[in-house]
Amino acid sequence: MHTDPECIFCKIVAGQIPCFKLYEDATVLSFMDINPVNDGHCLVITKAHAENFYDAGPDDLQAVIRAAQRVARAVDRALAPAGLNIIQANGPAAGQSVFHYHLHVFPRRAGDNASFNWQQIPGDMQRIEANHGKILAALAQA
Amino acid sequence: MHTDPECIFCKIVAGQIPCFKLYEDATVLSFMDINPVNDGHCLVITKAHAENFYDAGPDDLQAVIRAAQRVARAVDRALAPAGLNIIQANGPAAGQSVFHYHLHVFPRRAGDNASFNWQQIPGDMQRIEANHGKILAALAQA
Repeated sequence: MHTDPECIFCKIVAGQIPCFKLYEDATVLSFMDINPVNDGHCLVITKAHAENFYDAGPDDLQAVIRAAQRVARAVDRALAPAGLNIIQANGPAAGQSVFHYHLHVFPRRAGDNASFNWQQIPGDMQRIEANHGKILAALAQA
Repeated sequence: MHTDPECIFCKIVAGQIPCFKLYEDATVLSFMDINPVNDGHCLVITKAHAENFYDAGPDDLQAVIRAAQRVARAVDRALAPAGLNIIQANGPAAGQSVFHYHLHVFPRRAGDNASFNWQQIPGDMQRIEANHGKILAALAQA
């Protein structure tokens, strides 16, 4: 499996940087975004390092979308957001800031006017941890 | 395969409403968005009717993401956008306006300040057709 020792997401996959883990299998990792726009904002990534959607392995993408559906259903059950987007960015002009393929599970609040190029603002760790626990509980009931 | 006779995307799948088709297989259809935000904006949908990401069949989702990668690569080669997002909406608060699962291949212009809840503005059909031709040519070279 291709990895990049300088990549922050590769370091999370390797366990060198901690995360609030939601789901893991041989191909995929899902964890809370620590710069969340809304409660329950989380990520699903390939374990293999690929810069973006163009470069990711098709089998890895298939595993990501299956895992993302499980995680999104759990976010919906756990937090009942007003709506939910799945979003993925390729290139800085599209808002990509980490150059390792990742898909955002992006819960919406009514009237939040979310933009593709949202600001990275560090979240409240206790609040992220509380949402993590709720989503994990919903995943366990799936 | 589940279909909804009132659904506009099911009518496109059935050939009752025309589209600028980019890709088709047994499970998936891709075509140009006729209300494009930017040049090359197109859709990848399941042929089976499912309201949203939560309800779509996992095998159908796998086929969608594989097709979306092919289409996104072709859009990138054909039109060289500044960036490209993949976005999918669940519920009106997330910007969903057609209640049949679909994923947007969403090219970006630098500084377009695109919102998740963009306005539906009918596009210039000649321009959409020209972009369609360029993307088809790129798909044929894949």
